[in-house]
Amino acid sequence: MAEERGRRPGNPQTRQEILEAAMESFAAHGYGGTTIRAVARAAGVDPALVMHFFGNKDGLFEAAIKASMPVALMVGALDGDASGIGERLVARYLELWEDPRHGPRLSAVLHAAAATPATAALLKELLGRELLAPIARRLPGAHPEVRALLAASQLLGLAMIRYLLRLDPLASLPAGQVAALIAPNVQRYLTGTLSLDEIAAARG
Amino acid sequence: MAEERGRRPGNPQTRQEILEAAMESFAAHGYGGTTIRAVARAAGVDPALVMHFFGNKDGLFEAAIKASMPVALMVGALDGDASGIGERLVARYLELWEDPRHGPRLSAVLHAAAATPATAALLKELLGRELLAPIARRLPGAHPEVRALLAASQLLGLAMIRYLLRLDPLASLPAGQVAALIAPNVQRYLTGTLSLDEIAAARG
Repeated sequence: MAEERGRRPGNPQTRQEILEAAMESFAAHGYGGTTIRAVARAAGVDPALVMHFFGNKDGLFEAAIKASMPVALMVGALDGDASGIGERLVARYLELWEDPRHGPRLSAVLHAAAATPATAALLKELLGRELLAPIARRLPGAHPEVRALLAASQLLGLAMIRYLLRLDPLASLPAGQVAALIAPNVQRYLTGTLSLDEIAAARG
Repeated sequence: MAEERGRRPGNPQTRQEILEAAMESFAAHGYGGTTIRAVARAAGVDPALVMHFFGNKDGLFEAAIKASMPVALMVGALDGDASGIGERLVARYLELWEDPRHGPRLSAVLHAAAATPATAALLKELLGRELLAPIARRLPGAHPEVRALLAASQLLGLAMIRYLLRLDPLASLPAGQVAALIAPNVQRYLTGTLSLDEIAAARG
């Protein structure tokens, strides 16, 4: 059981409040600029309570990244007819990035990929398990893992160009325009004809 | 003229040796882990000579990033028939990433994109001016800047998945296989039919 330091230690809402404060801090100050102490202060709890729930800063970071990945919203975009799957996925993805609540958190996740080898390894594991595997499970046909990853490569790169580096003209085009340009390529990855038999042969 | 501290201050080869040492250090230790002093030591010169050539750490970093972007090799891949432009560009890009000399430097450039807002701004400017503009100038048809950026979004994302996060199965497939999967999408961006009239209207 929790030590009874800090306030409301047994309350699941307290854990959520700490997590929200952590997501805000990682988004605003990055991994290096975030401390257990500052997150505790922002959440109005004792630092010991943060450690009780999350162990250490890495545990807090992992929980924050996991909570920042809008898995259900991305996976939900796959429901419906297969011919519109690329369009729906790209549109949903851009909606999330444009959202004032989700956008900065996704940006923090993307920064984490390049921050340190440890955060990259953590993100790799979380991306694979929490986002790519559920998407791959919903794809029809063979080699869904390759297809999901190919789509992810396009979507990650788009976020880097548009939201992280903010390179024009792609950064200032309306999201709907960008989605129309990108969607056919994502559609090809998810349901199109790819040289996947060769892949099977190469992987033995 | 150069102050005559350090050795061979007037020699352009000395500048190149400092730059090589800097690229190695940024690739191995990142921006934060690189110091003028350590680069000077590795190059066998006085720190004052590093500052003479590059001003400060940011100047050194900018020169290192610029020297690490194999612009001529990427741009050269555009020469030849337009129908094979995607295949040639992706194949050349993967060759560079797989190259033991270029790969770690490109990785350092990619990390720089996410390291700090200042390095992101620097990379944005250099990417736009040194790589995307020369590529756009060689593309046929309208809206070459949008087309070059769309291709860049795919190529950057591919590097993140394959070389930075190393997500399988895309990380362990042979480069030729990956090129075959990606090339048609890059080809569509560079020479295919896009909804670019709508773009003109949106930006007009």
